[in-house]
Amino acid sequence: MSERYPLADLDELPDDLRERILAEQEKAGFVPEVLLMFGRRPAEMRAFFAYHDALMEREGNLSKADKEMVVVAISGQNNCLYCVVAHGAILRIVKKDPLVADQVAGSYRTAELTPRERAICDFATKVNLRSDELSDAAFAALHEHGLDNEDAWDIAAITGLFGLSNRMANATDMRPNPEFYLMGRVPRQK
Amino acid sequence: MSERYPLADLDELPDDLRERILAEQEKAGFVPEVLLMFGRRPAEMRAFFAYHDALMEREGNLSKADKEMVVVAISGQNNCLYCVVAHGAILRIVKKDPLVADQVAGSYRTAELTPRERAICDFATKVNLRSDELSDAAFAALHEHGLDNEDAWDIAAITGLFGLSNRMANATDMRPNPEFYLMGRVPRQK
Amino acid sequence: MSERYPLADLDELPDDLRERILAEQEKAGFVPEVLLMFGRRPAEMRAFFAYHDALMEREGNLSKADKEMVVVAISGQNNCLYCVVAHGAILRIVKKDPLVADQVAGSYRTAELTPRERAICDFATKVNLRSDELSDAAFAALHEHGLDNEDAWDIAAITGLFGLSNRMANATDMRPNPEFYLMGRVPRQK
Amino acid sequence: MSERYPLADLDELPDDLRERILAEQEKAGFVPEVLLMFGRRPAEMRAFFAYHDALMEREGNLSKADKEMVVVAISGQNNCLYCVVAHGAILRIVKKDPLVADQVAGSYRTAELTPRERAICDFATKVNLRSDELSDAAFAALHEHGLDNEDAWDIAAITGLFGLSNRMANATDMRPNPEFYLMGRVPRQK
Amino acid sequence: MSERYPLADLDELPDDLRERILAEQEKAGFVPEVLLMFGRRPAEMRAFFAYHDALMEREGNLSKADKEMVVVAISGQNNCLYCVVAHGAILRIVKKDPLVADQVAGSYRTAELTPRERAICDFATKVNLRSDELSDAAFAALHEHGLDNEDAWDIAAITGLFGLSNRMANATDMRPNPEFYLMGRVPRQK
Amino acid sequence: MSERYPLADLDELPDDLRERILAEQEKAGFVPEVLLMFGRRPAEMRAFFAYHDALMEREGNLSKADKEMVVVAISGQNNCLYCVVAHGAILRIVKKDPLVADQVAGSYRTAELTPRERAICDFATKVNLRSDELSDAAFAALHEHGLDNEDAWDIAAITGLFGLSNRMANATDMRPNPEFYLMGRVPRQK
Repeated sequence: MSERYPLADLDELPDDLRERILAEQEKAGFVPEVLLMFGRRPAEMRAFFAYHDALMEREGNLSKADKEMVVVAISGQNNCLYCVVAHGAILRIVKKDPLVADQVAGSYRTAELTPRERAICDFATKVNLRSDELSDAAFAALHEHGLDNEDAWDIAAITGLFGLSNRMANATDMRPNPEFYLMGRVPRQK
Repeated sequence: MSERYPLADLDELPDDLRERILAEQEKAGFVPEVLLMFGRRPAEMRAFFAYHDALMEREGNLSKADKEMVVVAISGQNNCLYCVVAHGAILRIVKKDPLVADQVAGSYRTAELTPRERAICDFATKVNLRSDELSDAAFAALHEHGLDNEDAWDIAAITGLFGLSNRMANATDMRPNPEFYLMGRVPRQK
Repeated sequence: MSERYPLADLDELPDDLRERILAEQEKAGFVPEVLLMFGRRPAEMRAFFAYHDALMEREGNLSKADKEMVVVAISGQNNCLYCVVAHGAILRIVKKDPLVADQVAGSYRTAELTPRERAICDFATKVNLRSDELSDAAFAALHEHGLDNEDAWDIAAITGLFGLSNRMANATDMRPNPEFYLMGRVPRQK
Repeated sequence: MSERYPLADLDELPDDLRERILAEQEKAGFVPEVLLMFGRRPAEMRAFFAYHDALMEREGNLSKADKEMVVVAISGQNNCLYCVVAHGAILRIVKKDPLVADQVAGSYRTAELTPRERAICDFATKVNLRSDELSDAAFAALHEHGLDNEDAWDIAAITGLFGLSNRMANATDMRPNPEFYLMGRVPRQK
Repeated sequence: MSERYPLADLDELPDDLRERILAEQEKAGFVPEVLLMFGRRPAEMRAFFAYHDALMEREGNLSKADKEMVVVAISGQNNCLYCVVAHGAILRIVKKDPLVADQVAGSYRTAELTPRERAICDFATKVNLRSDELSDAAFAALHEHGLDNEDAWDIAAITGLFGLSNRMANATDMRPNPEFYLMGRVPRQK
Repeated sequence: MSERYPLADLDELPDDLRERILAEQEKAGFVPEVLLMFGRRPAEMRAFFAYHDALMEREGNLSKADKEMVVVAISGQNNCLYCVVAHGAILRIVKKDPLVADQVAGSYRTAELTPRERAICDFATKVNLRSDELSDAAFAALHEHGLDNEDAWDIAAITGLFGLSNRMANATDMRPNPEFYLMGRVPRQK
């Protein structure tokens, strides 16, 4: 647990945030540390999740797995342990693939991806590391895979928003909950 | 004007956003392009400005000029023309200094800054470029100038949030309004 | 499986290599792909494992876990999926810690390490990324933790040897066996 | 001579290594420092030279001069004085070209090379500096010059093996014997 | 004003330099700090301006605005405040464009340039940052826009000469005169 | 010989340049290619050598060997073959040391230098690669070795001026005369 910033006390959070956190806890079985860290500043937390939900739930040509792949790829590039581990878990689950997250976190170039997925990661990487070099050719490369400029916007904004959370996680020394490391690696028993 | 994304039509925006934009227009005399670009996606725009206002208006040990200095410094590092020019204008105005923005946008290391301002830029730069290297020593360097961990959070979050807008501005090819280039450079006539 | 290089056929390997591979298979329950890839060139494979064993089994002040930590840290820096996944598994097992490998693979700077472990990773990182900057101060930093120049040699040679296998794995497009991804993450059932 | 590690005493080395060293001495007229440094650890030395000989003596489409060119090019990139100077000497001799080594050590891009040699250096450079970016196109570029995937393996393995010796030379502060600097620069007198 | 080096005293300068400086003062209304800094070493100053004039006044296919654009672009890449501000002013004036300098100083890739101007900046950037990668293709890209090898020479030499003054300005902590920041931003009143 | 630019014809050069070149030829026994390349533009050539002579012949605390060491170090960093080879020859001769140039060209950090020489190379390297980071501490490090700010100016200006010639040599594809490679490596016979 971070020594730089004490986590928020769940009982003292505003109702809307406590409810969101309890809902997450119900779903996951634990409270992700990011929620109690971001909960230290309720207005910022509300803004972050409003942005997050707007992007991750928008209906476009990108699947939820595509979007989580972007999160994992750029979090790896930004050396953010928390986001690699937590969103790696989500990626394994939504993609029903126990291996992909570790592959993408290291370098999407050696991951087993489709050409369309690789094009998405190429675009996200340009946004992440040298956005002033984004030329029309970068957009055209997405178009070749049936993705339009609104999808490009999604990739860019997801890259930017998680670039923000990567930096906050590293600055606050956020620790991924141990449960995240294992989620989605083993088939659920019935 | 961007050829990648048509700007939002002010008349068709939701009331709350249109009012915010009209208020900005009244204050500045023009509508900053970022508002009409972000207006294409109202939910994201609301989230961005909620985050922005929470950070920029929080009362702490950082002045508004300190915060805008961070925005200009990291926007320069991220090669974002829109944010350098638009926030450069704001920095000139709030700091009542016609020269500082051009200095900080290039490299804060050669700018005429106080040691405290330099420490703020040092911290923001670590957050921006290699956040996994943020050690306790980086926080201690802020403490020496009377800044606490909540101020460090502000610097980190401002760096992250504008890192997001830097990337969106470059991806959408946002163009700074010509008025921004000149604002704050000449004393107002009375 | 790599399309660039067909794997060796176990039955056609020289006896000494086939026996080593069968021994590994008995221990792990599967044949790590690296053995069948390196098996394509028996003389090189023998040399690699002779070097490997000399380093990994030398008695010094570095534990086996320390050495595997070095392998994982530098393989992450070199973006080698195979070595991160395979040696991540070994690190989890020898350190009896299901979390450490993912932490070190991303960035040892945000991993939960002791100061001694961090010093080892600092030294390995200098060797890996800019070995001409290795000054006497780098050795002195190891001495502070009870490590001597022979331990420094071990770190340097392990970094170099796995830098070689990182490059071979990426050049041959070696794929980690799926079993590696999960090994050491869950306590053995009794 | 290195102050970090005393060199091995030739008289106390195991017979096989002493014989190899004496043979080298007979051929060159002096004992290359690398042999006495590596001799400190006989098992590692045997492994290194077994690997070295397997690669450098394999019959393929790469000449000995091609292979030494790779060594010099990547040793220059890795800032390894010992290997640049010692293998620069070998390159001059086997290529019967007194100028090529200094050219390749600096930057093969400005060296007087054939397109085939340039393609070899391009591939080695990718292996050396960013092996996860090795795509099928990198292999195809070799194929255009009559080189096959086994030759590519040679380039990759030579790059990796000398990347190891580059790092060991810098870590141990190995000094090239003065004789190496001049070898192959002047035509032998008859 | 620099604390590292006292500026030259105009009255004590050799006649030829004092006259050049007075002429500049008459034209600009102030004495650019670079003149008094370089004036500390008259022989070097004469050489610098002889080189400068030979390049900037040569008749070729590059306009004066093209040449000043190169100066601003590479000075931005080299983080030289003095040259960005002083030559930014000149670029605004000769190009009669109040916006272009700030655009080019940040990243010419997001500036509103013609394809020909972009090709010029591409070439200058290669010269500035990795001149050993200048291939025949880089020259061919200029030829496509009606520029010949003498124009390429001009771009290379301007990039090199201002790379020298960038480094001198940063080493001496030269401060741009405040007047430069505003020049060329507002239409002259009649 | 460069295919991009035909060399100047000695007979058609202005008298002053032809005489300088003939004097060099008399001293060295051959005409260095740089003179015939720069001779293509007499005014620029005169300016270059005026600058060169002012710096290299100024009497200060830096010896000629110190100055040539700076040239070789930064030419290596800039990957300029011509300057590494030609000034490497000069450095060997003026320092009466046949080994130092190859050491410094690769990486001064592994060269056999005195602490004072290392401090000079540290300063030159900062000037060359990131001049905006030159702080007062960089100057203080020179002062510790009896060097003053005028010597610092010399180092900075030599670094800048040869940074210019490095870029011109690479842009014009200048080839070092074969004689340079050997000069100063063997003791003169008497």
